[in-house]
Amino acid sequence: MATPHPTKEGFTYSPAAGLKRGVVTEGAIRPLQSLSAKADSKPFDVIVIGAGYTGLSAARDLTLAGRSVLLLDARDRIGGRTWTSQIDGEKFEMGGVSFPRDIRYSLLARVARTASDVTALPQTWIHWSMGYVWREIQRYGLDQRLSITPNELFPDFSFNKTNFNGQVIQEPFKANFQMCEDAFRRFCDVDGHNGATVIPIATQVVKGVLVNEELVKKYDQYSIADRIAEVRAKNICSERELAFLIPWFVLSWGARPEDASLLELIKWARHGENSFSFLAQILWCYRLTDGQSHLARNIFEEARRTERLCWSFETIVSSVTDRHGSVEVQTSKGTYKALKVVSTLPQNVASKVRFDPPLSALRQEAFSIKHVGQGHKIHSIFNRPELRSGVWNAWHETNDPPYELAAAFGDHTLRDGRVSVVAFGGGNSAKNLPSQDPTKIRRWLKDVDPIFSEAYEGSVWHEWIDDPYAQGHWNMHPPNYYTRFHLELQKPHGNVEFASADWADGWKSFIDGAIEQGTKAAYRINQELQQRPRSSRL
Amino acid sequence: MATPHPTKEGFTYSPAAGLKRGVVTEGAIRPLQSLSAKADSKPFDVIVIGAGYTGLSAARDLTLAGRSVLLLDARDRIGGRTWTSQIDGEKFEMGGVSFPRDIRYSLLARVARTASDVTALPQTWIHWSMGYVWREIQRYGLDQRLSITPNELFPDFSFNKTNFNGQVIQEPFKANFQMCEDAFRRFCDVDGHNGATVIPIATQVVKGVLVNEELVKKYDQYSIADRIAEVRAKNICSERELAFLIPWFVLSWGARPEDASLLELIKWARHGENSFSFLAQILWCYRLTDGQSHLARNIFEEARRTERLCWSFETIVSSVTDRHGSVEVQTSKGTYKALKVVSTLPQNVASKVRFDPPLSALRQEAFSIKHVGQGHKIHSIFNRPELRSGVWNAWHETNDPPYELAAAFGDHTLRDGRVSVVAFGGGNSAKNLPSQDPTKIRRWLKDVDPIFSEAYEGSVWHEWIDDPYAQGHWNMHPPNYYTRFHLELQKPHGNVEFASADWADGWKSFIDGAIEQGTKAAYRINQELQQRPRSSRL
Repeated sequence: MATPHPTKEGFTYSPAAGLKRGVVTEGAIRPLQSLSAKADSKPFDVIVIGAGYTGLSAARDLTLAGRSVLLLDARDRIGGRTWTSQIDGEKFEMGGVSFPRDIRYSLLARVARTASDVTALPQTWIHWSMGYVWREIQRYGLDQRLSITPNELFPDFSFNKTNFNGQVIQEPFKANFQMCEDAFRRFCDVDGHNGATVIPIATQVVKGVLVNEELVKKYDQYSIADRIAEVRAKNICSERELAFLIPWFVLSWGARPEDASLLELIKWARHGENSFSFLAQILWCYRLTDGQSHLARNIFEEARRTERLCWSFETIVSSVTDRHGSVEVQTSKGTYKALKVVSTLPQNVASKVRFDPPLSALRQEAFSIKHVGQGHKIHSIFNRPELRSGVWNAWHETNDPPYELAAAFGDHTLRDGRVSVVAFGGGNSAKNLPSQDPTKIRRWLKDVDPIFSEAYEGSVWHEWIDDPYAQGHWNMHPPNYYTRFHLELQKPHGNVEFASADWADGWKSFIDGAIEQGTKAAYRINQELQQRPRSSRL
Repeated sequence: MATPHPTKEGFTYSPAAGLKRGVVTEGAIRPLQSLSAKADSKPFDVIVIGAGYTGLSAARDLTLAGRSVLLLDARDRIGGRTWTSQIDGEKFEMGGVSFPRDIRYSLLARVARTASDVTALPQTWIHWSMGYVWREIQRYGLDQRLSITPNELFPDFSFNKTNFNGQVIQEPFKANFQMCEDAFRRFCDVDGHNGATVIPIATQVVKGVLVNEELVKKYDQYSIADRIAEVRAKNICSERELAFLIPWFVLSWGARPEDASLLELIKWARHGENSFSFLAQILWCYRLTDGQSHLARNIFEEARRTERLCWSFETIVSSVTDRHGSVEVQTSKGTYKALKVVSTLPQNVASKVRFDPPLSALRQEAFSIKHVGQGHKIHSIFNRPELRSGVWNAWHETNDPPYELAAAFGDHTLRDGRVSVVAFGGGNSAKNLPSQDPTKIRRWLKDVDPIFSEAYEGSVWHEWIDDPYAQGHWNMHPPNYYTRFHLELQKPHGNVEFASADWADGWKSFIDGAIEQGTKAAYRINQELQQRPRSSRL
């Protein structure tokens, strides 16, 4: 493990200590700059903008291949929208897609050799069917540092409590999960073929040998709310089933159902063979014992060891100028040159950077429309051990605004016996953030279940919604976005590659998709630079 | 596409033209040697023994990372146990795991934009849940050259014909497939938890945080025949279901049920979420339009473009001597030196090479026991278009020997309207090979179904069983092998890494597992060499 350092990012709050900004993470790199003053004038082979998983994989692949790389990031840490904070020896995943784990795997806790093999853990799950990230995990030997959530005190979730339109239903978690398996399949079966006519190959939504463009366009028009209306009209799912599914969609998209693309749900379902329990395994079962920042750090360190990596954090890019076969990147720290640039700027902030020559009108439009992943993700600590075994869903369709939080679950038991509960919202607004008034968190949780008003000790979270370098969490499309912009977003622009999980072909919006994008960009650039002599810059 | 050249491997036979050795393949490299005579004396960074997917990925990753690599192979082509022959413009996959495709995907043919999008294709399937090979496919843009089997004339398999213990049952393919889904799940559910207590994480059978060694050892003792006996005694599957499943096991293992490890079946089932239809998608649905040799060639060419790759084909390694921090590899073409060696010698032939210092007693024992993948794979051409839509299974439990071929299916329709049927055997012997008397093929096929005695025009195949560099096809363990030897086989031996799909953690025996092993070996070697100065050899 690399030494963790402070980042300015992340908030903690407790009634006793109040609001504080900044926590400690293995993702914080020291020194913040590796450049000498005179470095500015010498061109790099490649400048990589953004040190999330996309930028890290591109920088690692390129430096391994002998290219000199300058890695820039506006933040003071690596990892982008996925990072791990450390507080008093406990780890909290501050971003990334995360969900409660699969009930079926409770049995795993029983077969593990010793109790200590299976420990309380931070979130952000990965799975061997996500090939890009699994490859990284295996290369670094981190597949032997892999765990699931169960702990000694609560080997399992025991109940699910749903507050839907003001009606509260509590039932055993197992019964709820079994209901989901069947209800989810019916909800997603839009074509009578489990979505296979719409998206035959899960990694090829809009381009590929089996893609039927008309059919994909048709389903891209629908929001999840449209499908909910259809499902209600045709009695495909019961209200009891929708009471679970709707908050689950809200938490998955970070958006209200009317803002969320149905096509993206069909894609998820296809990845999981339309099985809720298989998706549960893929999306919220296996995690890295050492946290996501540790994996990110492994990639960074592999690049650093080549001695061909320079980096500059807290460095804000203002413009990218591509002229006469060389690209100039203007930043708050200086101007740098390279033969090629990889921009990993996320969709919601890419329009802040000026490109010259200007981007295509279509890409400019794509960047002007924001993705809808606008949820909170807040870890809260309670001195109530039994909260570890609960899963909560909450949504009020007619409230405006609806509940700020749509789902919560007991995430892990701290070493001192207290419990961390993680809660997610959807369709939230930058005008109503916990950092503006952190006492809101407890009230929002209380709206989900009054039980959360007691024994609350504090929270830790990253304010993704007004994060100037993300403006949202994982990328989720509104209707009519996928088919219009996906291919345009993937195109290079002169000597600038655009790479981001936001338009990955495979696990779009996931760590796996980020690595896919970094891998592809590095491959293309390396092939193009192959004919040119290697840089003797470093 | 690179120009195809002749290889000495592969056989063709037709009653008219007789038996011929050698076909044309994109996997044949010219020139066979890239070394100059004086090269012998200068050491390489790494010598990679074997140019299958394991060796190719290792050589590619290492040359990209700046290492000088000498790639050796006894054959005159790349690809090892997977390669694609070309005969009159038609491609045939000569090795690799291959099966009939999933009925559920017949609908894909109907949604594809044009008929020409979905073409008749050679075999050997890949899937996006196989992360290592999918990454390669995406990097090279071959995911846009991906197809499924259906063609215009026969959009689907229409019937399944099973000849089991002499009883013949013919039924619609769809009904048969639906039966399989349920029967397969019951057959594999050895623990009442779909195998999840035995192998919680599909890529970690004998080592991993959730592995219960005692339980894994227990199930490793069983053969598939043991499970068949149990399933019969407890009425878990009907004889009708077993009539399909048993030949399917024979073809999958290339072995008789009594020689095949049950643990390996549980692992396959876990990879496919215990769903026959999901496994069908993973194992026999999507294929490379340009063939496996084209993918292999892409990896080779990427390494070649670094100008750090030397190669020598038709070069048989006799000994590997690791002394004083340098390894000497004696071959039929000369003696070469390197800092590190990657041996990708398959299990069944590794004992032919002398290692000094000698291998551990345990590894020597592991190499002395042969894996049981001893099946035929024979493509035969018939002038009967309707054979394209058939799937055949055949087995006679009490015959000794049983039928030489255990399964067949219509593989593709040639451009001239004739049909290629591919047939598989299991538990076959080097004493009874088609190349010794190719008229046998027709008789063997006739044992499966008398229909094959008519309109037979000829065959193409690779004789894997007596192949001196493989002695078998894909690796399948007998009982009690996995838990005893798997970890030992993965260990390095001084400066020699042992890498092979035969002991991959993930998709053992598959292309994906081969790339996993090459990737890991290259990573470890690159990290170890990092401190040393880069070679200026080339």
